[in-house]
Amino acid sequence: MKALRFFGNTLELVEIPPPNRETEALIRVTRSGICNTDLEIVRGYAGFQGTIGHEFVGVVERADDAMELIGKRVVGEINAGCGTCELCLAGDPRHCPTRTVLGIVGRDGAHAEFLNLPSRNLIEVPDNVSDEQAVFAEPLAAANGIAEQVDIGNETRVAVIGDGKLGLLCAMTMALRSPHVTLIGKHKSKLDIAEKRKIRGIVLDDISSAFDRRFDVVVEASGSESGFATALDLVRPRGKIVLKSTFHGTPTWQASRVVVDEVTIVGSRCGRFAPAIDMLANGSIDVADMIDDEFPLSNGIAAMDRAAEKGTLKILLAP
Amino acid sequence: MKALRFFGNTLELVEIPPPNRETEALIRVTRSGICNTDLEIVRGYAGFQGTIGHEFVGVVERADDAMELIGKRVVGEINAGCGTCELCLAGDPRHCPTRTVLGIVGRDGAHAEFLNLPSRNLIEVPDNVSDEQAVFAEPLAAANGIAEQVDIGNETRVAVIGDGKLGLLCAMTMALRSPHVTLIGKHKSKLDIAEKRKIRGIVLDDISSAFDRRFDVVVEASGSESGFATALDLVRPRGKIVLKSTFHGTPTWQASRVVVDEVTIVGSRCGRFAPAIDMLANGSIDVADMIDDEFPLSNGIAAMDRAAEKGTLKILLAP
Repeated sequence: MKALRFFGNTLELVEIPPPNRETEALIRVTRSGICNTDLEIVRGYAGFQGTIGHEFVGVVERADDAMELIGKRVVGEINAGCGTCELCLAGDPRHCPTRTVLGIVGRDGAHAEFLNLPSRNLIEVPDNVSDEQAVFAEPLAAANGIAEQVDIGNETRVAVIGDGKLGLLCAMTMALRSPHVTLIGKHKSKLDIAEKRKIRGIVLDDISSAFDRRFDVVVEASGSESGFATALDLVRPRGKIVLKSTFHGTPTWQASRVVVDEVTIVGSRCGRFAPAIDMLANGSIDVADMIDDEFPLSNGIAAMDRAAEKGTLKILLAP
Repeated sequence: MKALRFFGNTLELVEIPPPNRETEALIRVTRSGICNTDLEIVRGYAGFQGTIGHEFVGVVERADDAMELIGKRVVGEINAGCGTCELCLAGDPRHCPTRTVLGIVGRDGAHAEFLNLPSRNLIEVPDNVSDEQAVFAEPLAAANGIAEQVDIGNETRVAVIGDGKLGLLCAMTMALRSPHVTLIGKHKSKLDIAEKRKIRGIVLDDISSAFDRRFDVVVEASGSESGFATALDLVRPRGKIVLKSTFHGTPTWQASRVVVDEVTIVGSRCGRFAPAIDMLANGSIDVADMIDDEFPLSNGIAAMDRAAEKGTLKILLAP
């Protein structure tokens, strides 16, 4: 099968045998989505080598322990826990210390014709959710995961920094809970996507001290080092900053300001898939205008180049 | 009166008129304590110039709006709010945006014969609490403030990094709530102070990967850049790191690990004085063996030098 693989220095589209973890389900990928984490991995983040990609929708071809899934269209939770540790037994393999993570840690990923995941990771996609929508389940779950960690109510003033794919999804999910969501970014075209959903969009250069300390919750989704400094300016004393971006490197931070203003910083990575699928199925989240292009998997290198261009939203791959 | 003042480059003991804020109480200082923040201020932290010092006990000499306080022995909340903003009206001037802070922001401090504070900031000291104990009210309130922000229960595994004055007080207050408190430091003599209180003490060099991810809450009270990295090693996924130290500088941090492990970081500065005075009065916190020396205020420069020596615990000044 074709697979887009990172070899530590080079990214190559190669022909390899399909994956063969016999205790797991085999899924034929119908669409995969390129995430910023994929771009960070080819810059060295997480030290991963193998098939990249973790956003996908596909059809179950084999699932010995869950025959009822065969032929079903599914998305999948990307963390595969050991199944026996304290965290896995508590039903949360997302922090299992020996977990593998699809296309990120110790497990070949989704930019390929086939992938393996444990059957218990799979969630069926309702008929009224298209492949192009379903491929957003993973990032949408991640965005909505914020609300599983931080109370967002009708009065909560939220700022989201970063108008990329993740920032937009964060703003959209927060806006389901609070009418006071502001998206801050660099690209008028993306802020327009937010404004179409009645989310206030502000160009980063227009952020002045008038916005200082005005927000109860600030979500840092820009993936840039300066994003955190901006978040510290915007958050109110005793407010919360949600860190949403993973990136390669060791930034600096004004730790003393965190102490003096008694700010809480919440690291947020994954969320639950079921609410995300519900949002796509019931139409409360519409992702149609967030897809910039679709490439055949055979053109995966070009697709990654395109995804890396500034201002690009979601790029899909179709095997 | 004598006052220990920082002039931006030099620290000097000078003779100046007593402070004269007529709407505030005038307190004759009987003891003040040297805090690490005082040492940081003379290194440039907070850009403060004026009389340093914020830990004190004294006797009220004048209080036009609270005559009943005159002659009383008091300690004082160090943040003086505007009294009219949203935060002040909600009863918490600690984050008033235009607050002054005794000996730290815009207000002369406690290493002097007299100081001013609003009467509402003052708390009477019970007779059974000595001056030497009462001077610990401020740092003890700060240490206990952690429990106002983070749940510490009987099962909570807590590590405190840093065996200085603040770290010891943090460990001692946490140990009132959980039997699973570990203090990590560099000085056997200080860890012994913790162990006398049945708090496990571990020398930093003995921390191995066996401790990784074993703690629900890690308090960073070392004030060193490496302390945060150690905290990230020790905290469990979805655990909490409490940042307690203010220091001059901009450290680096592994922000990605905060995201991947979904760690929460809680900045923590001040706490309420009333519970701290209670702990001193009822004997649940004993600070007797935390005082290393007492100097006359006239010898304040030497006292600061002594406080800056590695391994020194509390140094008191007596006017």
